[in-house]
Amino acid sequence: MTPHNLRIVISTGGGDAPGLNAVIRAVVLAADKRGWEVFGSRNGYQGLLDTNHLVRLEPSEVFGIEQMGGTILGTTNKGNPFEFPVSSLTGEVTIRDLSPRVMENFKRLRFDAFIAVGGDGSLNIARRFAELGMPVIGIPKTIDNDLSGTVITFGLDTACVTATEALDKLKTTARSHERIFVVELMGRYAGWIALESGLAGGADVILIPEIPYDIRIVAEKILDIDVHGRKHAIVVVAEGAVPIDGKLTTKNETEAGRQEVVLGGIAERIAKELKDLTGKDTRHLVLGHLQRGGSPTRFDRLLGTRFGAAAIRFIEQGYFDTMVALDPPTVKAVPLVDAVSRMKNVPLDGDTIQTARDLSICLGD
Amino acid sequence: MTPHNLRIVISTGGGDAPGLNAVIRAVVLAADKRGWEVFGSRNGYQGLLDTNHLVRLEPSEVFGIEQMGGTILGTTNKGNPFEFPVSSLTGEVTIRDLSPRVMENFKRLRFDAFIAVGGDGSLNIARRFAELGMPVIGIPKTIDNDLSGTVITFGLDTACVTATEALDKLKTTARSHERIFVVELMGRYAGWIALESGLAGGADVILIPEIPYDIRIVAEKILDIDVHGRKHAIVVVAEGAVPIDGKLTTKNETEAGRQEVVLGGIAERIAKELKDLTGKDTRHLVLGHLQRGGSPTRFDRLLGTRFGAAAIRFIEQGYFDTMVALDPPTVKAVPLVDAVSRMKNVPLDGDTIQTARDLSICLGD
Amino acid sequence: MTPHNLRIVISTGGGDAPGLNAVIRAVVLAADKRGWEVFGSRNGYQGLLDTNHLVRLEPSEVFGIEQMGGTILGTTNKGNPFEFPVSSLTGEVTIRDLSPRVMENFKRLRFDAFIAVGGDGSLNIARRFAELGMPVIGIPKTIDNDLSGTVITFGLDTACVTATEALDKLKTTARSHERIFVVELMGRYAGWIALESGLAGGADVILIPEIPYDIRIVAEKILDIDVHGRKHAIVVVAEGAVPIDGKLTTKNETEAGRQEVVLGGIAERIAKELKDLTGKDTRHLVLGHLQRGGSPTRFDRLLGTRFGAAAIRFIEQGYFDTMVALDPPTVKAVPLVDAVSRMKNVPLDGDTIQTARDLSICLGD
Amino acid sequence: MTPHNLRIVISTGGGDAPGLNAVIRAVVLAADKRGWEVFGSRNGYQGLLDTNHLVRLEPSEVFGIEQMGGTILGTTNKGNPFEFPVSSLTGEVTIRDLSPRVMENFKRLRFDAFIAVGGDGSLNIARRFAELGMPVIGIPKTIDNDLSGTVITFGLDTACVTATEALDKLKTTARSHERIFVVELMGRYAGWIALESGLAGGADVILIPEIPYDIRIVAEKILDIDVHGRKHAIVVVAEGAVPIDGKLTTKNETEAGRQEVVLGGIAERIAKELKDLTGKDTRHLVLGHLQRGGSPTRFDRLLGTRFGAAAIRFIEQGYFDTMVALDPPTVKAVPLVDAVSRMKNVPLDGDTIQTARDLSICLGD
Repeated sequence: MTPHNLRIVISTGGGDAPGLNAVIRAVVLAADKRGWEVFGSRNGYQGLLDTNHLVRLEPSEVFGIEQMGGTILGTTNKGNPFEFPVSSLTGEVTIRDLSPRVMENFKRLRFDAFIAVGGDGSLNIARRFAELGMPVIGIPKTIDNDLSGTVITFGLDTACVTATEALDKLKTTARSHERIFVVELMGRYAGWIALESGLAGGADVILIPEIPYDIRIVAEKILDIDVHGRKHAIVVVAEGAVPIDGKLTTKNETEAGRQEVVLGGIAERIAKELKDLTGKDTRHLVLGHLQRGGSPTRFDRLLGTRFGAAAIRFIEQGYFDTMVALDPPTVKAVPLVDAVSRMKNVPLDGDTIQTARDLSICLGD
Repeated sequence: MTPHNLRIVISTGGGDAPGLNAVIRAVVLAADKRGWEVFGSRNGYQGLLDTNHLVRLEPSEVFGIEQMGGTILGTTNKGNPFEFPVSSLTGEVTIRDLSPRVMENFKRLRFDAFIAVGGDGSLNIARRFAELGMPVIGIPKTIDNDLSGTVITFGLDTACVTATEALDKLKTTARSHERIFVVELMGRYAGWIALESGLAGGADVILIPEIPYDIRIVAEKILDIDVHGRKHAIVVVAEGAVPIDGKLTTKNETEAGRQEVVLGGIAERIAKELKDLTGKDTRHLVLGHLQRGGSPTRFDRLLGTRFGAAAIRFIEQGYFDTMVALDPPTVKAVPLVDAVSRMKNVPLDGDTIQTARDLSICLGD
Repeated sequence: MTPHNLRIVISTGGGDAPGLNAVIRAVVLAADKRGWEVFGSRNGYQGLLDTNHLVRLEPSEVFGIEQMGGTILGTTNKGNPFEFPVSSLTGEVTIRDLSPRVMENFKRLRFDAFIAVGGDGSLNIARRFAELGMPVIGIPKTIDNDLSGTVITFGLDTACVTATEALDKLKTTARSHERIFVVELMGRYAGWIALESGLAGGADVILIPEIPYDIRIVAEKILDIDVHGRKHAIVVVAEGAVPIDGKLTTKNETEAGRQEVVLGGIAERIAKELKDLTGKDTRHLVLGHLQRGGSPTRFDRLLGTRFGAAAIRFIEQGYFDTMVALDPPTVKAVPLVDAVSRMKNVPLDGDTIQTARDLSICLGD
Repeated sequence: MTPHNLRIVISTGGGDAPGLNAVIRAVVLAADKRGWEVFGSRNGYQGLLDTNHLVRLEPSEVFGIEQMGGTILGTTNKGNPFEFPVSSLTGEVTIRDLSPRVMENFKRLRFDAFIAVGGDGSLNIARRFAELGMPVIGIPKTIDNDLSGTVITFGLDTACVTATEALDKLKTTARSHERIFVVELMGRYAGWIALESGLAGGADVILIPEIPYDIRIVAEKILDIDVHGRKHAIVVVAEGAVPIDGKLTTKNETEAGRQEVVLGGIAERIAKELKDLTGKDTRHLVLGHLQRGGSPTRFDRLLGTRFGAAAIRFIEQGYFDTMVALDPPTVKAVPLVDAVSRMKNVPLDGDTIQTARDLSICLGD
């Protein structure tokens, strides 16, 4: 039986990632080709909680948006529907389970499928709705590339391009001024951005969460470069990198079961320590939100487009409770539960780490 | 037994591709880490034919070259050593087999391994030297992404970025002037650049060598867009695209067993035909060598770097007569003979083609 | 007396130029600040001929458009209102003066001022409306930078950036392949784009309309470079460059009093001649509409914004029948009649030409 | 009398600026054309103090460097020759006047002219050598555009391009997350980078050193934007911006007679204050050294090239004790003493400030 005139609802949740608009456009166009309708839930699950925040997405409205950063649906989450903070008239906040309201809205509006575009958090919520009987397709979204189940997702390439361009810029001024630059890149739990950008950008040192670093080994590397006649160096550090001999400042448990780390200042700290240990002119830079922003690269536009179209095909084929994933060169569906059950870290025995070691890049260990 | 103090020779052949210098740098650094020496054969096999064209590659000489387009070794091939054109004093040209001279030089200079970076042509020659007993590792190089054995190689991403940027530029002026633009991209036998760039760049029509096109179907698509209220459109065409009802102008057999097509003018021809069939203001652009040039993207730098380092590891492990290949997320060695025995075309049942159809992009059929 | 609640109409005519949308946005915002209303005439003068093509421009509609190439008002001119081609029922075309209809619409809709953004052609038409009593402010628009009265206008910088990036890309592949590249850039009557991009992009030869070139001198330069050990070279040629010993293919008089040249093929011709004269591997590239397209540079956005705001201030001050002009570091008003009466060519005794000669760049003479 | 076989020495001092290498290349090529020799003094005046740091610059060594950021001569100043810090064997530092040694080296090496490329500090030193009889030409170098005597100099365009690209990126993520971003740009005493980039990048608030800001006025602007339905905003702040009601943390007199401000943290401070005053999600970013780095834009390459060639022509013509300056469209020589005697601030009555006000951009006052 071929499905007829399906009604699809889509949301984008969590931090934005370049490529989200390409996903939305592809979903809308591939649905339109089949005569289906697509509705957008603004700001994550808000449109499913309060249908005033649902918008009909016509093909004319998504023309050209594949070039745009961010997401036309917004990502300003008010909370997890299963544990939603509700304020009383007296200002007290209580946690309520609003999932029945979401399920009711979903049925009342006669939706046939829900496409959840999100990271670990949003996809876990989607999985819980799937358990309640909602036909769900997940699409992975993470700048950090830390979702398992897919070899890569959109957003990483744009972030790495921005980071590598920053390294290219800093190298020229580092050389002129004979300086050490310490550059902090995204990556709380996984070091993909730092490792890939550092390799592409010719970094001398790359510090990632997967390998606790010894600052004295880093300082020795800087001094060794100097001995060999080069007076400048580039140190790349992921925001979640941790020193071998220390603890991170603060941690607490998040709903996704991860340790939430209060980050910040790792580049500044390392710059200060390297200055003390080497005596060299040392500066730091935190690239921050620049890595999330801007027009997606052609790679992220293409991958987002393929993921969006695949989600519609998987709905057509009835592959629910799955996540769209890239298994190069092909897009396939993997069980949603597998995808969100564990993180994808940089494998320490993989060829990318081995490449860094082969190039005598210091990894802090 | 761990190899000691190996002497490696490397060449880059055929059309240049962004990422070649990243390969060279990684080979030199990964060899240096092991205490090995690397020599470069200038202009393909020329350095192995005439040792005046061999250069010692020191780590200091490859500093920062990963950012540079082209190849520091040059690619101006004088000919295939197995069928080398030799001019006599009277100007007559005879074809001679100079492969014994190459083998002799290789032995005389006590080389332990040869890294051939090249496309179909160069790798086939390398394979023949492997048959003569030379320890060979191939590294795939093709802008067009038409080499089998590897999911992707360096150069494609940079070419697609340049092409997508061109489409982004043309869209704005096409809209202002209500014009049809026909853009010719690289791809003689395989349509990867056109398909991927066209999808990322929001093209309305994508014509690739794998799908013979009917110009009347393309014209109908243009008129249909007009009926729906949009006055401009973008047509992307691979240089090797062929009309359904016609033959290409000239073909002849090449040494690689492929049909060599004398190309050019496909965009101009299509623009003229579309103007006649639709009556619309139609322009064409041939992007040409811009797609080969320029600083490699971070993706191509990274992949080139991983390939170069892997080649050295494969030499260390004795994996000869193989080609370095990407099987995401890992780099592995595949038999060289498999890699060069057939082309990698765009699979017509793959998800990328399906995505184009889902987005109602006209593929000319 | 301060003007109250003025109603402004704006049009953009001729070929599009990056920065037009920044002009429109600044006009709308600066008018809104004063409580004035702005209307856009679509496709040049079409909105003034047929008020169905007039649109009210609200501040919300121009949000963010400064980043966009092209013009939201379109530039698909149907003709000069003073000599408008009108088709009868039998298909005959007669030329009619529709300027009275424009004047009547202008009065009937109680417009207080007209801002004409255009090149030589559009501004001349605007000047004739000014003679009929319409309060007119001109804003110069030309990629080619050939309008006198202003030191520079928006569009040139974006075109030169695109051209220089193309030269950067070609240099790397030219070097690898030891090739000569001939690159055709815009510039029918004035060689600014070719001269400025060629200087910034390290060209060896720059041929501009202002200096008829001798192909033998160009060939000598190429051979001289070869003798000094460099095997590749870059030749930049403006589309309007002319050989010293030849005539251009076709010319005819345009309404602006200029000789209209049927162009095309100058790069291909020069490449062929250089190949014959030097025996070297020579390729050509026509950059074409890429130079008009795409997001404007920060320079063109800024200049367009300054010009748009200045136009509103000049209306407030009653400076009509003038053109907004840049006299660095200040924007001022110059008489419209002066601005359109002559072209701004590259001065042969200026320091930019002298710089090219100081760098031993061949100018073909 | 035409000068014959002159020997020129050139230095680059102070913070690096994109375009320095274009200057060096043009000086070398224009000198070579006249048969002159050029020597580079490494790290500012160091090569004139210690001739081991002098290098002969041949045309072959400057090939292609116009594309490179930084300066091949380095800028790691050890000190002002007139007040040079000298360490004794016991570690004591005394200030000595080493200018006689510079004058002696200059004469002993038979130099005919000195080209000083630098900012306020380096040019003042050059002027003092001119007073001692050295034939000096200055070339202005400042990212901040705060040197008087020239309408603009190289470096500003590249810095503004980097800054505007950052604003473009942040706008997309600001919109998705409904955030306020506060971006700190360069500009200690003059607000050119912040003002020009803010205008080009569509900022809502621009704070510059020339206009002390009232944080409550900024907060009102943010709230007013919110009332009108936009939930995100961009605040651009020059590093030297000062609150109307406060003092900067630390100041002291510099040799150039300016107040040296210990900067840093202005963006973080403003972000915190805005969060408190508006209750909105507010983030900050310090763009820092990214603005100095990277390949120069075509504008900065061109201007650097014109300046370098002009310096050689001015030497030929005997125009010493002058600075090369841009008076568009022409490069001219201005007295060196005039150029360094005062700063070039953003004129508060100029059309750029007026443009910002016309667009309802908040300037903090």
